[in-house]
Amino acid sequence: MLRIITQRAEALTELRRICDRTHDDQVVHKEATVREVLQAIKRQGDRAILHYTEEYDQIVLAPEELRISGSELEAAYHQVSSDLLEAIRLACRQVEAFHRQRVPKSWVQFGDDEVVLGKRYTPVDRAGLYVPGGRAAYPSTVIMNAIPAKVAKVPRIVVTTPPGPDKAVNPAVLVAAQEAGVQEIYRIGGAQAIGALAYGTETVPKVDVITGPGNIYVTLAKKLVYGTVGIDSLAGPSEVLIIADGRANPVHVAADMLAQAEHDPLAAAILLTTDSGLAMKVVSEVKQQLLNHPRKVLTEKSIAHYGLVVVVDSLEAAAELSNEFAPEHLELEVADPWSLLANIRHAGAIFLGNSTPEAVGDYLAGPNHTLPTSGSARYASALGVETFMKHSSLIQYSPQALHRVAQAVDTLATAEGLPSHADSVRLRVRGQLESDD
Amino acid sequence: MLRIITQRAEALTELRRICDRTHDDQVVHKEATVREVLQAIKRQGDRAILHYTEEYDQIVLAPEELRISGSELEAAYHQVSSDLLEAIRLACRQVEAFHRQRVPKSWVQFGDDEVVLGKRYTPVDRAGLYVPGGRAAYPSTVIMNAIPAKVAKVPRIVVTTPPGPDKAVNPAVLVAAQEAGVQEIYRIGGAQAIGALAYGTETVPKVDVITGPGNIYVTLAKKLVYGTVGIDSLAGPSEVLIIADGRANPVHVAADMLAQAEHDPLAAAILLTTDSGLAMKVVSEVKQQLLNHPRKVLTEKSIAHYGLVVVVDSLEAAAELSNEFAPEHLELEVADPWSLLANIRHAGAIFLGNSTPEAVGDYLAGPNHTLPTSGSARYASALGVETFMKHSSLIQYSPQALHRVAQAVDTLATAEGLPSHADSVRLRVRGQLESDD
Repeated sequence: MLRIITQRAEALTELRRICDRTHDDQVVHKEATVREVLQAIKRQGDRAILHYTEEYDQIVLAPEELRISGSELEAAYHQVSSDLLEAIRLACRQVEAFHRQRVPKSWVQFGDDEVVLGKRYTPVDRAGLYVPGGRAAYPSTVIMNAIPAKVAKVPRIVVTTPPGPDKAVNPAVLVAAQEAGVQEIYRIGGAQAIGALAYGTETVPKVDVITGPGNIYVTLAKKLVYGTVGIDSLAGPSEVLIIADGRANPVHVAADMLAQAEHDPLAAAILLTTDSGLAMKVVSEVKQQLLNHPRKVLTEKSIAHYGLVVVVDSLEAAAELSNEFAPEHLELEVADPWSLLANIRHAGAIFLGNSTPEAVGDYLAGPNHTLPTSGSARYASALGVETFMKHSSLIQYSPQALHRVAQAVDTLATAEGLPSHADSVRLRVRGQLESDD
Repeated sequence: MLRIITQRAEALTELRRICDRTHDDQVVHKEATVREVLQAIKRQGDRAILHYTEEYDQIVLAPEELRISGSELEAAYHQVSSDLLEAIRLACRQVEAFHRQRVPKSWVQFGDDEVVLGKRYTPVDRAGLYVPGGRAAYPSTVIMNAIPAKVAKVPRIVVTTPPGPDKAVNPAVLVAAQEAGVQEIYRIGGAQAIGALAYGTETVPKVDVITGPGNIYVTLAKKLVYGTVGIDSLAGPSEVLIIADGRANPVHVAADMLAQAEHDPLAAAILLTTDSGLAMKVVSEVKQQLLNHPRKVLTEKSIAHYGLVVVVDSLEAAAELSNEFAPEHLELEVADPWSLLANIRHAGAIFLGNSTPEAVGDYLAGPNHTLPTSGSARYASALGVETFMKHSSLIQYSPQALHRVAQAVDTLATAEGLPSHADSVRLRVRGQLESDD
């Protein structure tokens, strides 16, 4: 069921098909639904949240139940094992340490020409993190979104996440949020959560930036509110591309492919290898590891539709195909990964060598696991501290400095037909000349 | 016609109205039109470009006329004055010097724990810059978009700009493009240009990032293709907010307000001052300077609808109102602008002191003039070199390092119900233990 391809042209076609797998003919129809939800939240606030929570999640909530109470937050600590708590704490520490590196810093430069220029970085006032429920209720999602916001020193960070069947939220998610420094959590899911964060309601604060993954309705809602608020990215289903030479271990490669496939029927797992023997061993090992897989049906579906093995002539050819695909995750399971790195142009995160399975990056290596999908690594990057910051340019001219550029500004403003632009400089320089007298 | 307000509550209401001035009930209807244009470009390529250029610009082009020829590019140099050429060159030099500061740099950190982590920055492969025509055909737009792409080392930079009535493009725009290092220019405007850059056609290359301002159709098209390509931002009409104390010069303040208003009937010019005498003088000076203004009708319309003067109790109160508005441009025409800066949280660019009119920043101070509008300075920043770059996270674990975190990864993967994530680590560690024997 996992196909092996050896022709470059066919490989390119298949990679393009996989890259475009989220293109959805129903999207215009779904967008109309989402637009309606957003409008209702904007106009009716909490009332609309409760309405859609009943309609889509089959949960009847009172307004005062929207926010998760202090006692629920506390109780969550009694529902997770001490091993899990320790693992969450380790992940928080390592993710925080990585994100504290190269945080954007304000700077000012005083020129010899009496011109002061600079950039001043400040955090956003409020950030809203969406944490999916259901199949993808992951404490790691909370950590990877909340820690960068905390490092950016965002004064108010709120989380929304859909309520489960008994109104409850996954306790590991609640513990992870608290360990990452977030106490303000609302049980709201779907497009209604994005609307609440974008416009604000009686209960939920309007935020400046919304981050976090979600299903197609959440993603469409984020696209629609973009411009009213900032967003991290439009996340699609996850994907891994592995480049392996003959020395890679087929058992490990197969496990890495399945670790991607088990996320979602739309997840993609691709192997590019110079060794046709390895290709065949991986195919049979994937079959083997699927036999007793707890998420067998879903994982098989993903492997069947979006799994692919390509045998290539050289590692350089593999890198070139990988650049075409621009994978979210790229594993270089080759003898000299640092040398191959020079050939890689586009990838969200790169895992070098045979002892670096993607899972260490997913959980605790430190770099963010929120990465560009569906080929967007061609132009986008991991979520980071900058997602929650912005900067202002700073400019100060002395009268003399203004005098020096006055003629050039005048010429450009006149060429552009903007007389008051020219005046704003000319009147100051003239005044200055007069006061020089 | 320029109103003076003294009540804080009324000022807040007015500022909110001005901030929301681009909310447009026709937007859903316009979006349908834009969606149709984009679909046609995607399916029919050049043929659709030519069709819409005839329909919207009333220009009939042959496919080979889409790209501006070498002789046209050369001829443009004979059509601009030597003063203008010098001013364009000065602007290019200063904008380049500013953008060369703090360009993101790749880094790798080798930990004591046999873990290597890092970030690797690379430019996008191709950038597409949209340069508006008509009322806003500005050489400065080309400079502010092309220079950051050049500093980012983007291998292929293309410009599109709508053809004028005689098929020609503003020669100053053509010269500015060449001085900024761009030779590949297409005479295509509107949503059809954005579609061509996002999907590629027979003539126009598909790019990775599209930047540049435009009318509502261009902005809607950018929002719709976002996700297929990266974009800089959704630009709205321009705005300035000036905070002035009693020592500011009313003639200069009025010229600065008009320099904003003359852009567009939707542009906004706001003055917050502690001095009611200054407020009245500015109002009368605005009237005076409008008398013989070459763009009188348009500028008066902007001042009448979106001009505002607010008298406040203190500079701190002015800063607080300014933060609510989050202006694109903020001028601090006060005695000690650096001290007031501490109270400012959100602004695209800040002009400090009485000798720094916005116009120096618009043209040649160095910082980018492509700035967040309509309150988006709450979460967004100026266009910059980073707009044309992205980074990949780098992670490498040694076998021993993997061994150390294996239990924690296993615990987290198990808590999230992802068995192959756990396997991908477990199988490696087991193998490693065996080979230790």
